[in-house]
Amino acid sequence: MSHENYQSIIETLHECMSTCNHCYDACLKEDNVKMMAQCIRLDRECADICAYLEQALGRGTPFVPELAQVCADICEACGTECKKHDHDHCQKCAEVCFKCAEECKKLAS
Amino acid sequence: MSHENYQSIIETLHECMSTCNHCYDACLKEDNVKMMAQCIRLDRECADICAYLEQALGRGTPFVPELAQVCADICEACGTECKKHDHDHCQKCAEVCFKCAEECKKLAS
Amino acid sequence: MSHENYQSIIETLHECMSTCNHCYDACLKEDNVKMMAQCIRLDRECADICAYLEQALGRGTPFVPELAQVCADICEACGTECKKHDHDHCQKCAEVCFKCAEECKKLAS
Amino acid sequence: MSHENYQSIIETLHECMSTCNHCYDACLKEDNVKMMAQCIRLDRECADICAYLEQALGRGTPFVPELAQVCADICEACGTECKKHDHDHCQKCAEVCFKCAEECKKLAS
Repeated sequence: MSHENYQSIIETLHECMSTCNHCYDACLKEDNVKMMAQCIRLDRECADICAYLEQALGRGTPFVPELAQVCADICEACGTECKKHDHDHCQKCAEVCFKCAEECKKLAS
Repeated sequence: MSHENYQSIIETLHECMSTCNHCYDACLKEDNVKMMAQCIRLDRECADICAYLEQALGRGTPFVPELAQVCADICEACGTECKKHDHDHCQKCAEVCFKCAEECKKLAS
Repeated sequence: MSHENYQSIIETLHECMSTCNHCYDACLKEDNVKMMAQCIRLDRECADICAYLEQALGRGTPFVPELAQVCADICEACGTECKKHDHDHCQKCAEVCFKCAEECKKLAS
Repeated sequence: MSHENYQSIIETLHECMSTCNHCYDACLKEDNVKMMAQCIRLDRECADICAYLEQALGRGTPFVPELAQVCADICEACGTECKKHDHDHCQKCAEVCFKCAEECKKLAS
């Protein structure tokens, strides 16, 4: 894959990480935090794996397909959970997670 | 500082990271998650900085005092928050955080 | 999987991370650093994924098999590279990486 | 500090992390890797602390000044090392590190 294409996925991973961290922060401030527990958990996982993959791509990791596949799985799960909640930060997060999952799947194949 | 002393602080950081992650997980399963929001937040921060410092010491970082000081501050804050809650996982976490903060302070000086 | 078994794999991941970081540090101090370039690269990757999985298990991640599989792949590759070099730190690292890869494979299946 | 200003420092941290990882990768491919050993070491440290602070800001960490100060110190040291080497990736990295150090110092004060 060309360097330009990595640049694009790195930006998407960065956006997904930021959006998940924002959603995590916002979920912890909601009135009904209990309802958001799984969302909080998946936001953290998704932010961490996106941060990991972003760094790994940047440093020339030889494990692109393996890491992209696990990142796709986690983004997909996080998007599915966020999608269930009406908060703007969750709906926005779902959208970015699904987009990131799609790009990671392409990278994995 | 001798290699043996690093070995000891690395074990303490590892224990603190594990205990904070366990407390984080347990807090998200509590009935009153809202009351635990700050604890969840600090558990994550404390686990992450302990994991960071543990790795940094292991790879021979030249920034031991700087990183140990910020780790001490975060462990202290996490211990202070955990201490407020009666759950066993919080009380245990407070104890481990305060111990880790003490060892980090020594490393920082 | 029982909590006791997680405790065992967490210790193995911790040992693997520490050993890889020590090998990374030692490789950077060798006379012939060029020969160690791939070892340095894989030591970092392996330390980082072990640190990731260790934290993820500790916080109750729902992605145990996916993460354990990628960790197994990276440990295996790092062990294979380290095995090629005669330095004590590389031979020791290879041994720990292969052991960790085995345990991760069990966790993944 | 306003959200807009965080957005700016997050972008700078992201650029610094990417540039350090690129420099790390390029240093490991140089003919004279031995001469680059300290650069490799500091590139990793700098990429990791920038990634840490970027995530911490994104999730609303209460430890902004403490983390920004240590990040400034590490960026400064990495820039100073990179500056010594004529490779384009090192000169570019030095420039980005110094810029990031300046912004982190402002955040710390």
